[in-house]
Amino acid sequence: MDNGLPLGFRLSVAEAAFKKPGRNDLALLLSDRPAAAAGLFTTNKFQAAPVLTGRERLRLSPTARAVLVNAGQANACTGEEGMLRCRQSLEMTASLLDINPDDILPASTGVIGAQMDMQAWERALPALAGNLGRAALEDFASAIMTTDAFPKYARRTLRIGNEQPVGIAGVAKGAGMICPNMATMLSVVFCDAVIDPGAWRALLAKAVDASFNRVSVDGDTSTNDTLYGLANGASGVSIAGTREAALEKILTEVLEELAYMLVKDGEGATKVMHIDIVGAVNDADAERAARAVGGSQLVKTAMFGKDANWGRVICALGRSGAVFNPDDVVFELCGVVMFSDGKPSPHNEELPASALEQRDIRMELRLGRGPGKYRLLASDLTHDYVSINSDYRS
Amino acid sequence: MDNGLPLGFRLSVAEAAFKKPGRNDLALLLSDRPAAAAGLFTTNKFQAAPVLTGRERLRLSPTARAVLVNAGQANACTGEEGMLRCRQSLEMTASLLDINPDDILPASTGVIGAQMDMQAWERALPALAGNLGRAALEDFASAIMTTDAFPKYARRTLRIGNEQPVGIAGVAKGAGMICPNMATMLSVVFCDAVIDPGAWRALLAKAVDASFNRVSVDGDTSTNDTLYGLANGASGVSIAGTREAALEKILTEVLEELAYMLVKDGEGATKVMHIDIVGAVNDADAERAARAVGGSQLVKTAMFGKDANWGRVICALGRSGAVFNPDDVVFELCGVVMFSDGKPSPHNEELPASALEQRDIRMELRLGRGPGKYRLLASDLTHDYVSINSDYRS
Repeated sequence: MDNGLPLGFRLSVAEAAFKKPGRNDLALLLSDRPAAAAGLFTTNKFQAAPVLTGRERLRLSPTARAVLVNAGQANACTGEEGMLRCRQSLEMTASLLDINPDDILPASTGVIGAQMDMQAWERALPALAGNLGRAALEDFASAIMTTDAFPKYARRTLRIGNEQPVGIAGVAKGAGMICPNMATMLSVVFCDAVIDPGAWRALLAKAVDASFNRVSVDGDTSTNDTLYGLANGASGVSIAGTREAALEKILTEVLEELAYMLVKDGEGATKVMHIDIVGAVNDADAERAARAVGGSQLVKTAMFGKDANWGRVICALGRSGAVFNPDDVVFELCGVVMFSDGKPSPHNEELPASALEQRDIRMELRLGRGPGKYRLLASDLTHDYVSINSDYRS
Repeated sequence: MDNGLPLGFRLSVAEAAFKKPGRNDLALLLSDRPAAAAGLFTTNKFQAAPVLTGRERLRLSPTARAVLVNAGQANACTGEEGMLRCRQSLEMTASLLDINPDDILPASTGVIGAQMDMQAWERALPALAGNLGRAALEDFASAIMTTDAFPKYARRTLRIGNEQPVGIAGVAKGAGMICPNMATMLSVVFCDAVIDPGAWRALLAKAVDASFNRVSVDGDTSTNDTLYGLANGASGVSIAGTREAALEKILTEVLEELAYMLVKDGEGATKVMHIDIVGAVNDADAERAARAVGGSQLVKTAMFGKDANWGRVICALGRSGAVFNPDDVVFELCGVVMFSDGKPSPHNEELPASALEQRDIRMELRLGRGPGKYRLLASDLTHDYVSINSDYRS
């Protein structure tokens, strides 16, 4: 590995001043060879131009060379003109890099409904191309931030026998608001393993399901949510068959680390709730229960208030739609049983006052004896959340 | 009518000091004869003892004589002991009123998990029985309040030809938090029409679906939500056949008026959003869309901030799961088209700055040309909401 990055990748950042000057807001990842490429996109019916464009490019080709991210202009709800400007930005970048514009995957985050400022792109792209290889992972992670409080990046190394180590690195932004328009989650993960594009896509989908799909800040799914994964084979280490599980494991670790950071940096958040549902009829039911608890404004405000208000958790579970017998439910908060047998537990009082002072709050809800389980990370709901999101855009 | 109430009903309030002294927190409605009785209860899987008790009583008998409400003790998640104490409270009341305890329907609101203080009941019940007929509708509405900012009551009169007018009155509480434990909605509506209990139940269910089921403050459904309806026939006016529509109409008006008050008095709320979805594939899809918009923390905080942030509304619609073509969507805010044809509307700028200063904010989302429609009333999300709900219980 060079620069701590997976082999055969270079990073660059530049300042286009899309919203205001004084910070880098353009980021580029370039692979020196075609990389197996996969993308996971928002399920929102309104999809931003870069989402539509990236999705289409991945449909036509299993490989890509680059990912181009801009922070400050979402290019969402911008109609045909937005699609055209997205394409222009890719063409300008490709010509400076001397690669095919179809080999660049775009991602954007910012205010909905505004057309991209193409002059800002034109002014900044020569620097972006010229800076290639000079940016570290942290610089890339910083350049894609919007209201994020800190850059989010993670890396791991996979060692298989005596072979060259396989490097994996990832960055993410969100789930802070965008200026202040919506929570957008963007992430790019890249790796130097040799892997079939179909296998890579499958691994990535599984790792995302185990990480980013299990966090909740405010329950909104933006028009721009995007995760790209590139695997360029530069390490020469082939991942196939039984080795896939090893790669999946560290890939999941990287994404879990990033996902944790998203919740920790949730808008105004002071807490990360680790909500474990066990003993449910099936995993889908466990997920339903976890999302009801983690999405409850009442649970979120109680956690902000450091209030062991177990009634709110039980109430959210009760309206979740999950199937269970209320008398079977056991609720543990920070390891102390608060509720069981349909009534308050006598252990209730054993919860130390300091328990809810911690940032990380563990909750386990046992619904019965079924095999279903789910873990969700969720942030609390605070005054800062309301302040950030009720400010005028101007 | 006597005292402005439907005929043959008397009200009473008393102070049991369940939480603290200085206010009435017990309320009783008594009909001088058996009244057709119906109840609608929370869908939460954890059901409070008074909910289980009231449901069972209505299953066994189509009539009742009284409704007994206490504010301060939810009697939820209290196990067998809670069921026993609920029954005791009804028996003590019945013996003072010299009626059958099975003829009293109970409702409670307060902190989850605490057992009711039976001595407080014993001390207060003689006054409650002695005060019968001395309380006005507003007194009853005040006695069932918890963190509500104002009492909620409404009444209407139905005139059919030259017959005696039919009186209808209703009270409600919520959706403020309970001390601060959960949003509980309680309501009692009573009327002096002569009506078959089955028909009354059906009318009430339709009226509730058109009113209370269409409001959202914070999306939580409590363990105690209860609405009781009594029709005692004291006016002598028979409602059957085509007259049912007339009664349904004014019953719905009473409940809509109360439902509007719930949202207006939502915890910390400064706004009432009137969200109309039209042109959806069907009503269920329209409801899905309305609930996504009205439940979105981002839309709610934007309204608090008086920010015409249409991107958040479009984003919430896009993740709602409703079926539509994004290019068909037209979004009107306070009568001004903000978004159509998949892009920002040029009329955007015509929204007067004063529009979002109003308490009542009208939003219409046209999804297409389908017959589906739904209206939801929703409150905004404010600093006061967070303050109220993050305070320690103590």
